[in-house]
Amino acid sequence: MYRTDTFRIPMAGPADMTKLTALIEDGALDPMHIVALLVKTEGNGGVNDFTREYTSATLAATLAPYLRATHAEVERRIAIVVSGGTEGVLSPHATVFARTPVAGRAGTASKRLAIGTAATRDFLPHEIGRAAQIEATAAAVAAAMADAGISRAQDVHWVQVKCPLLTADRVRAARRAGHEPVTEIAYKSMAYSRGASALGVAVALGEIATPIAEDAVLSDWSLASAVASASAGIELKNNIVIVLGNAEGVGGDCVIAHAVMQDAIDAAAVLAALRQSGVQADVAARGGNSASTDAGDMRIDTSRIVQVLAKADPSPDGMVRGFRHTMLDDTDISATRHARAAVGGMIAGLIGCPAAFVSGGAEHQGPPGGGPVAVIARVSE
Amino acid sequence: MYRTDTFRIPMAGPADMTKLTALIEDGALDPMHIVALLVKTEGNGGVNDFTREYTSATLAATLAPYLRATHAEVERRIAIVVSGGTEGVLSPHATVFARTPVAGRAGTASKRLAIGTAATRDFLPHEIGRAAQIEATAAAVAAAMADAGISRAQDVHWVQVKCPLLTADRVRAARRAGHEPVTEIAYKSMAYSRGASALGVAVALGEIATPIAEDAVLSDWSLASAVASASAGIELKNNIVIVLGNAEGVGGDCVIAHAVMQDAIDAAAVLAALRQSGVQADVAARGGNSASTDAGDMRIDTSRIVQVLAKADPSPDGMVRGFRHTMLDDTDISATRHARAAVGGMIAGLIGCPAAFVSGGAEHQGPPGGGPVAVIARVSE
Amino acid sequence: MYRTDTFRIPMAGPADMTKLTALIEDGALDPMHIVALLVKTEGNGGVNDFTREYTSATLAATLAPYLRATHAEVERRIAIVVSGGTEGVLSPHATVFARTPVAGRAGTASKRLAIGTAATRDFLPHEIGRAAQIEATAAAVAAAMADAGISRAQDVHWVQVKCPLLTADRVRAARRAGHEPVTEIAYKSMAYSRGASALGVAVALGEIATPIAEDAVLSDWSLASAVASASAGIELKNNIVIVLGNAEGVGGDCVIAHAVMQDAIDAAAVLAALRQSGVQADVAARGGNSASTDAGDMRIDTSRIVQVLAKADPSPDGMVRGFRHTMLDDTDISATRHARAAVGGMIAGLIGCPAAFVSGGAEHQGPPGGGPVAVIARVSE
Amino acid sequence: MYRTDTFRIPMAGPADMTKLTALIEDGALDPMHIVALLVKTEGNGGVNDFTREYTSATLAATLAPYLRATHAEVERRIAIVVSGGTEGVLSPHATVFARTPVAGRAGTASKRLAIGTAATRDFLPHEIGRAAQIEATAAAVAAAMADAGISRAQDVHWVQVKCPLLTADRVRAARRAGHEPVTEIAYKSMAYSRGASALGVAVALGEIATPIAEDAVLSDWSLASAVASASAGIELKNNIVIVLGNAEGVGGDCVIAHAVMQDAIDAAAVLAALRQSGVQADVAARGGNSASTDAGDMRIDTSRIVQVLAKADPSPDGMVRGFRHTMLDDTDISATRHARAAVGGMIAGLIGCPAAFVSGGAEHQGPPGGGPVAVIARVSE
Repeated sequence: MYRTDTFRIPMAGPADMTKLTALIEDGALDPMHIVALLVKTEGNGGVNDFTREYTSATLAATLAPYLRATHAEVERRIAIVVSGGTEGVLSPHATVFARTPVAGRAGTASKRLAIGTAATRDFLPHEIGRAAQIEATAAAVAAAMADAGISRAQDVHWVQVKCPLLTADRVRAARRAGHEPVTEIAYKSMAYSRGASALGVAVALGEIATPIAEDAVLSDWSLASAVASASAGIELKNNIVIVLGNAEGVGGDCVIAHAVMQDAIDAAAVLAALRQSGVQADVAARGGNSASTDAGDMRIDTSRIVQVLAKADPSPDGMVRGFRHTMLDDTDISATRHARAAVGGMIAGLIGCPAAFVSGGAEHQGPPGGGPVAVIARVSE
Repeated sequence: MYRTDTFRIPMAGPADMTKLTALIEDGALDPMHIVALLVKTEGNGGVNDFTREYTSATLAATLAPYLRATHAEVERRIAIVVSGGTEGVLSPHATVFARTPVAGRAGTASKRLAIGTAATRDFLPHEIGRAAQIEATAAAVAAAMADAGISRAQDVHWVQVKCPLLTADRVRAARRAGHEPVTEIAYKSMAYSRGASALGVAVALGEIATPIAEDAVLSDWSLASAVASASAGIELKNNIVIVLGNAEGVGGDCVIAHAVMQDAIDAAAVLAALRQSGVQADVAARGGNSASTDAGDMRIDTSRIVQVLAKADPSPDGMVRGFRHTMLDDTDISATRHARAAVGGMIAGLIGCPAAFVSGGAEHQGPPGGGPVAVIARVSE
Repeated sequence: MYRTDTFRIPMAGPADMTKLTALIEDGALDPMHIVALLVKTEGNGGVNDFTREYTSATLAATLAPYLRATHAEVERRIAIVVSGGTEGVLSPHATVFARTPVAGRAGTASKRLAIGTAATRDFLPHEIGRAAQIEATAAAVAAAMADAGISRAQDVHWVQVKCPLLTADRVRAARRAGHEPVTEIAYKSMAYSRGASALGVAVALGEIATPIAEDAVLSDWSLASAVASASAGIELKNNIVIVLGNAEGVGGDCVIAHAVMQDAIDAAAVLAALRQSGVQADVAARGGNSASTDAGDMRIDTSRIVQVLAKADPSPDGMVRGFRHTMLDDTDISATRHARAAVGGMIAGLIGCPAAFVSGGAEHQGPPGGGPVAVIARVSE
Repeated sequence: MYRTDTFRIPMAGPADMTKLTALIEDGALDPMHIVALLVKTEGNGGVNDFTREYTSATLAATLAPYLRATHAEVERRIAIVVSGGTEGVLSPHATVFARTPVAGRAGTASKRLAIGTAATRDFLPHEIGRAAQIEATAAAVAAAMADAGISRAQDVHWVQVKCPLLTADRVRAARRAGHEPVTEIAYKSMAYSRGASALGVAVALGEIATPIAEDAVLSDWSLASAVASASAGIELKNNIVIVLGNAEGVGGDCVIAHAVMQDAIDAAAVLAALRQSGVQADVAARGGNSASTDAGDMRIDTSRIVQVLAKADPSPDGMVRGFRHTMLDDTDISATRHARAAVGGMIAGLIGCPAAFVSGGAEHQGPPGGGPVAVIARVSE
């Protein structure tokens, strides 16, 4: 079996590999053991966000000599998911997951953070947002669970999917090949790709009944996964899947837990995920007009928090808790950028750290306007 | 004396007066008693945010017949402060403050929410961001305190200032008149105007020693007010000042309290202000790995919260809690928009409502990167 | 009959009525004779561009006392079309069209600029972008031609349509009423509304065969009008139509001509329209390596140009003259803003004036990526 | 001596090297002879435009094996200037300049396009925008002229400079070192860096008298170069200089000429530069109401145009030909993006090609609001 090690490292720019190489050079991280990289870059997170491919390419180029592999081999061996958009207080960073082989049954008595990865084949442009993407993603999730050593769906707490999008070029290619893509608008294709990917996760985990009608994508919002997180990017043509959960027999000092935010301001769900992960966090009833003198101390035990992962979504009905939001009607700032900034601000406030992994576009990932949130935390010994 | 009534009403657009006229027509609000209007509109909050003047003009046109006054007279009688920018989850709305005269000493034994207003003279373009603006603002704060019936500085919990900015036109006018304005960049002039206004508040409340060197504006960040909130707009040439505090002898069922956010993710300060206002809110230590089953219940007593007012600021040193933020280096989205979205998300999460008054640009309003936050709450009887 | 007078006046902001009232107060313009106002404002031209309704409302309020009419009556009597977006060098301005009654047959021997207006009924949200909007627009164009005194389609050189869009609110209203709107994306609804309006113009002028399949909107790009210009805005629910052409018997010193830009850089079409309108403008072959010393003199006779009207469109195939453009894939700036800036720069360069009326979104208005351009010019006597 | 070869190649993205490697693999371009690369990428051209460094890094990585050199050596041998921003119709592309050695005196009787490059040392953050940058740039221009084989300043028609900017990080570094940088605003630092670089060019070419007062940068607009083009980027710390001119004894079939646009709509200057370069282009007086039937033929001989280089600038006085522009007051789109879109549209219209090299920010490069424009054209034999 193996031990899961998690490192969160700040990045000074999309190509800043300083902290990653320092971890390696210092001996803290064996590059051969890296299985996944989850990165937030400071691009716009939209169609023309080239920071994603820039970071991916730089990661591959940096790790290639360590792995004695070509860039392409690095990208096949390591699941690299780069999500653009650090609006508001969010801070560019990478989360590195490594699996260190250990002799015999490595784990403690209780379950520990486990990780597995898989990838689908490349999709043709017209397959994006449709059944082919749903099915291939479901199969990849099953493969990643097996890779992680997780056998039960309820032990899966986060499934990160990186998926492709349609550019004007790809739309033309599809049409030349006689296939009409699901949309011709690049920005909209990101939503379709994320939506189909999330439904694939839900299928794999038994969260929704199958078969799914293809036109349910971006249409039947009752279908959703509570742990899927999909992020679309121009830099790939297939889906890459990372499964995070807890498994017996796995080593390390971390566990993962999750909750589902019902809307973009669901602080209670974040606190619930923190508690489920073992982090002390509670908002209790206490005297309002009391003589309390310690007002202002927030005693969430942030020291145990390794990373928080969350989705941000502009509620498609234009409302949050009965109040109108303006994210969908803003021609100057895309709705996803608005949503990441808001959810990022809330989570950073609760965990006392702006380097959370908040990714935009939560179609079929939790309820409309909400989304999954997961906490990776160190266990108390 | 008087009783202070506070109404928060949603707006479907910058010119939506539906709820305001409904309050009046239903008899809930006597238009003759309105003393101040604090509005958040969905403009960009920047130089070319015309929603501010559009809303101001529409408010004046709507109230003029009720007050049997000209538009200009309405604007002189009622302090109208419109702040642009409802990024992220923030929701366009207006907060209406009315003072209803009551016979004799209206108040309860304890202090209640009090409000007073004042205005400075029009500033010449080159006076913006300089000593003339500081001094005139300080005098207006004193006048507004007297108007409110507040005698002690420590009873003041929020001073809202609306202040002018420099457009390319006004810069040219200043130069034609032989005066070099403090900056020729319109967006930057908003910062200067807010900064000088905040220092004026600090002078009036004795928060900083006088005299202040004129070049301290946007330079000596140790000088700040803990209760100032300044918002710049193209639609006016003078400063309008609204003082909110608690005063004996004033009636009504609300009180106000404040705290100072030390940075843009200072949730503890928001909770502190909630508690100081009498709202039950606490984040207590409780067992992490306990058998707690009520995870996810956040028991802040939101029913008593009438309004939360806060400033949002992109930390000028580029860092939040030791992590780099990217707000200052984004050429596509202005830093103030980023900051409002993030702080708005955090506050909405904590109070369970996205219709908070979060205004951007907190120069000399709390510490750099932070800002004041105030809570108006109904008292428990 | 009547004489057509045209005034182009700069605006210092969306509510700047200085030049308009000066024209009236100076006696140059009789407000009772104003039939149409074509305005470019400095909003973003997108969904949340409130400058359009702000300018419309201010125009109505300004003219109401002159016309001894209510605001609503002003808007019914005068066709007010406000188009947002003065990207690049474009300059906010208004073009005022007035019809002065003259005794008997006012006109000269030759045709002169004629103008007529009409309006459709209000549309239900689900009618936008569909057959109902096409048909009602066609009927309104016929009515406006009759109003102008133009009997033949070939004498029509510009048909300006202002049309509504779908907001999140209106989408919800449609669905509550059991009707699915043509799109739920506000920004996309602007394209549908413009497209259906343009097809309505084409139907009225016999440019395309009828009936049109409803799903031809934004789909069959072979259908287009050579003179339609549609602009969508949040501030109205019906279509307003202004027909500009030449007619015998009409007085004044202006004529109008048009050409169709085949793409966004079709300077030749602009020159052709200039020449057709009688303005001297030619790009002739002349010696390259000659000893010419007058290099740099551009001798277009700009003094006769009263106004240029044009559409700007981001080519939907992503290409301009075989080169890729990036307008459609930019998540930070909407494609319409890009296109207006580029076409506005080209036209301003050719006519030596940045106050042209360049409006975005040319769906079914000329070929994809191109659009109509019209020139109103003073005739030489 | 040498022969200058120029290739303009489209790019499908910041890392698209397809056409470059095709030129090399096809034998049309010997990679050992490349001296300079001038690239337009589709980033925002602002502070956080990472496409510039991404393209630079990819170019170095692509050429390194061909040159049997490290990436750093490639960047030292080849002057790589990447300018972000293809707003409007502008199309991402690269212009490759190669010098092929030829035996003896290669040139024809007349002068031909010559090119030379040089680089300054790295600047400290506080040197940017100040005398140190001016002086080092002037020296580099002289070195690049010598490298090109150009002895007289009047034979220089374009000097491209790539220069660094200040990020929040670099500002902090400067202050830690006890030096106050010229500005703390990253976006503004780009203007300072471009301005000082342009003044350096002007000094080298004798266009302005020396010494220059350091505070003339961004202040004394009477000082300017007619051939400088500076572009700031986050990806370098020194200035890279490329001199383009005509020289005797140099081979090849191209020449270069330039003119100075007096404002952003100066089409006459573009036509003048075309004619000076030998391209047939003229706007002649011809009958307006004539019976001309060839209206619309624009007979600029575009087949000889190899590349057009130009600067775009938002006029700092807020006016273009007496009309107000709104570029400087737009909080949503940076002024440089506006200006590139407009000037790019005009030039593309005149030359019939959207792949022109239009770069933003023309401080001290031509008059305020204008800028240099140069044409590289094939000579007629």
